[in-house]
Amino acid sequence: MSAAERRGRLVAALGDHGLDGIVVTTLVNVRYLTRFTGSNGALVVPREGAAVFLTDGRYRDQAAEELPDLAHVIGRDLLAGAAELMTHGGWGVETHVLSVDGHGRLDDLVGQVSLSPAGRLVESLREVKDDDEVAALRSACDISTRALEALVGQRLGGRTERAVARDLEHRMLELGAEAIAFDTILAAGENSAIPHHSPTDRVLAHGDLVKVDFGARVDGYHADCTRTFVLGRADDWQREIHAAVREAQAAGLELFREGAAVADSYAAATSSLDESGWLHAFTTGLGHGVGLQIHEDPFVGPSHAGKLSSRTVLTMEPGIYVPGRGGVRIEDTVLVTSGAPEVLTTMTKDLLEIG
Amino acid sequence: MSAAERRGRLVAALGDHGLDGIVVTTLVNVRYLTRFTGSNGALVVPREGAAVFLTDGRYRDQAAEELPDLAHVIGRDLLAGAAELMTHGGWGVETHVLSVDGHGRLDDLVGQVSLSPAGRLVESLREVKDDDEVAALRSACDISTRALEALVGQRLGGRTERAVARDLEHRMLELGAEAIAFDTILAAGENSAIPHHSPTDRVLAHGDLVKVDFGARVDGYHADCTRTFVLGRADDWQREIHAAVREAQAAGLELFREGAAVADSYAAATSSLDESGWLHAFTTGLGHGVGLQIHEDPFVGPSHAGKLSSRTVLTMEPGIYVPGRGGVRIEDTVLVTSGAPEVLTTMTKDLLEIG
Repeated sequence: MSAAERRGRLVAALGDHGLDGIVVTTLVNVRYLTRFTGSNGALVVPREGAAVFLTDGRYRDQAAEELPDLAHVIGRDLLAGAAELMTHGGWGVETHVLSVDGHGRLDDLVGQVSLSPAGRLVESLREVKDDDEVAALRSACDISTRALEALVGQRLGGRTERAVARDLEHRMLELGAEAIAFDTILAAGENSAIPHHSPTDRVLAHGDLVKVDFGARVDGYHADCTRTFVLGRADDWQREIHAAVREAQAAGLELFREGAAVADSYAAATSSLDESGWLHAFTTGLGHGVGLQIHEDPFVGPSHAGKLSSRTVLTMEPGIYVPGRGGVRIEDTVLVTSGAPEVLTTMTKDLLEIG
Repeated sequence: MSAAERRGRLVAALGDHGLDGIVVTTLVNVRYLTRFTGSNGALVVPREGAAVFLTDGRYRDQAAEELPDLAHVIGRDLLAGAAELMTHGGWGVETHVLSVDGHGRLDDLVGQVSLSPAGRLVESLREVKDDDEVAALRSACDISTRALEALVGQRLGGRTERAVARDLEHRMLELGAEAIAFDTILAAGENSAIPHHSPTDRVLAHGDLVKVDFGARVDGYHADCTRTFVLGRADDWQREIHAAVREAQAAGLELFREGAAVADSYAAATSSLDESGWLHAFTTGLGHGVGLQIHEDPFVGPSHAGKLSSRTVLTMEPGIYVPGRGGVRIEDTVLVTSGAPEVLTTMTKDLLEIG
């Protein structure tokens, strides 16, 4: 879908909300609607007439190249530039991200124009991925999988968490990732019980659970994958919690289907953990949309009132964390379809015993 | 300086502003005041009594380890948790970052407590670095310099912008960077005229200007450095613009001293570009503070009303950009002292002719 088509869908949504336009100030939403990849930009989208893109002088050439079909305003003060284009009526603003000070200044600048919260209008469009987005996500997940498969074929015992994390990241970049999707979590032994652990100089040793949460970024789109291994032979308690997480993950993931309630996925995964007796040890979120952001709508929780759409991409990532001993998390990035959910991070979920 | 001492300075500033407390919701400010390195947190700092840190369940163990001296509240809704601790009086909020929706919700939750903008109170404390911060910045700049020096000793001709950028990033990680500070800009030939260019598959060729804007991150602190080289022998026009940028950079940097007006640095660098006849080709910002953020206060511009303090760290980065032909930027990360400015990115600023 072209950026112009995406903007067309936004304009249609403006009508539904009775807005004369929207000023998009959330950078990732600007990127979605324009394909602009720089670090500063805004977009004015009137219900009638053409959208206008605003950025600063650093991006003059880049904007001309990336957005040939869109009028540009170049200047240091994007809100002032936007206000000049908002001539009348009632406009939506992204009050879930726009700062209090930014909103106050815009309100002063627009004079007679009234501002109202547009809600997560662009975020909701972003929940359903188009072909280009699915292709980028598929590529990011594929690179992530291949990098991890190659890593676990190496000898990891005796190396530090930090060194192994760097190795994995280097492999993703060599395989064509434009960047890593987020700071790699690589946690061995008792550190694996910490849901979000930053790699340290702890050395991977025989008997450790090794949890790896990582991903590649391709064309701005993020992969998110977690696997947990054992260095050497797995103990019974390690097998038990790995099996419990794997079962819960399968139960939740099974409901990532068009028309299924998001809350039902949450119920299925947590019921599974409850049955195995480990629900008390699950202390994090269960899943989230993934795309231009590593965490985006929809967030998988018990109070989510919506249903899943085909072409939504999201994660399922239950875990069991036993403080002082270790933990297991299994996470996939998954494409919702009208049929069976398609797992994009295809690395095996068996409990691998590695060297 | 310990995190407790930093909070002590903030409490003293609260008195000056007539505030009974401040709720810090800007993550990087929370990190500065607590040393918490996770991705979600807030801090309630009353003028009387003890500060309380808030985060979610993912960070329970990490918070206990990183912040042993600070009471914690663990929960999903940080604003609700904060509101419970704000029992009376007038409190400051970070309205320059806090969203309109977040502010509205907090205002509803706190009942009788009145909220008012605290300004960039924590940011202003962060402008003056303490010993730990200077050490981390020094280390990040040192790693950056060594990585670039090693890179230019290699043969770069015939490789792509992307491959050379990856090579440089890999060297920084190998030298001990915890991450790269920002997406590397590596731009060859006509691409060097684009101030913020993302590396492509363009091959570095004889006669190209090669501009590299990059840095390492150490303990959360960022280095920021730009150098521009020529592949092969430099042409006269390349020498001319390189000399003009180097002269402007030296003129601006010379005024990075305790007590000097920020605007005077701007005037000195831009006057130099004006004298050499290239001011029209300078289209970006001139410099910025650097620390826990890659861009932070102070920003070097003509309307900055303040003076520099000793132990402020900031960049000086004039450039000349000739669309379609090429560009030059020279940037250092610099420590302000009571004497001569100390350049932390010590790589030579000669126009190197590389292979």
